[in-house]
Amino acid sequence: MTELENCMESLITLFHRYADEDGDGSTLSKKELKKLMENELPTFLKCQKNPKTVDNILKDLDQNKDDKLSFEEFLPLIVGLSMACEKCYVLHQKKKSKK
Amino acid sequence: MTELENCMESLITLFHRYADEDGDGSTLSKKELKKLMENELPTFLKCQKNPKTVDNILKDLDQNKDDKLSFEEFLPLIVGLSMACEKCYVLHQKKKSKK
Repeated sequence: MTELENCMESLITLFHRYADEDGDGSTLSKKELKKLMENELPTFLKCQKNPKTVDNILKDLDQNKDDKLSFEEFLPLIVGLSMACEKCYVLHQKKKSKK
Repeated sequence: MTELENCMESLITLFHRYADEDGDGSTLSKKELKKLMENELPTFLKCQKNPKTVDNILKDLDQNKDDKLSFEEFLPLIVGLSMACEKCYVLHQKKKSKK
């Protein structure tokens, strides 16, 4: 598999690893989302001062208002974080090339 | 780094590896997108019967119509492919559990 294919497989298996913890394997409950973010996005979570970060993220992403995230609803979190990280990456590369 | 962090880093560095090939490192030209898809999504590309697949994808994703893809414009491709793959993954898991 290529790097990009590996990356998409990771997203899928990782989502299901956490989603499968309760009876409903197709969605992340709030508890499962919290665990996923604590384990997989610890740096991001530590930077958040609001203790309700996970609740707010769930509310923002939960399009059908069932208090759970499907894979489709979960992906915008990864897109948003990747976009933010990419901006930092570009700034960092510019700084490096100036040296 | 966690698996998810690695995955986001992969998306960013991979995009820039191809975007940096011509003078403009912040976007993928059609040629760069074609190369990225040929190298990183060979299985997907082989299944497409339309020889204009790359052109059509560029047209679909290119929101500001500059014939190039920024990282932000590129991400929906990964989201769309991941969503399609996840549907197959779920079907496959269901079949496995029935056996």
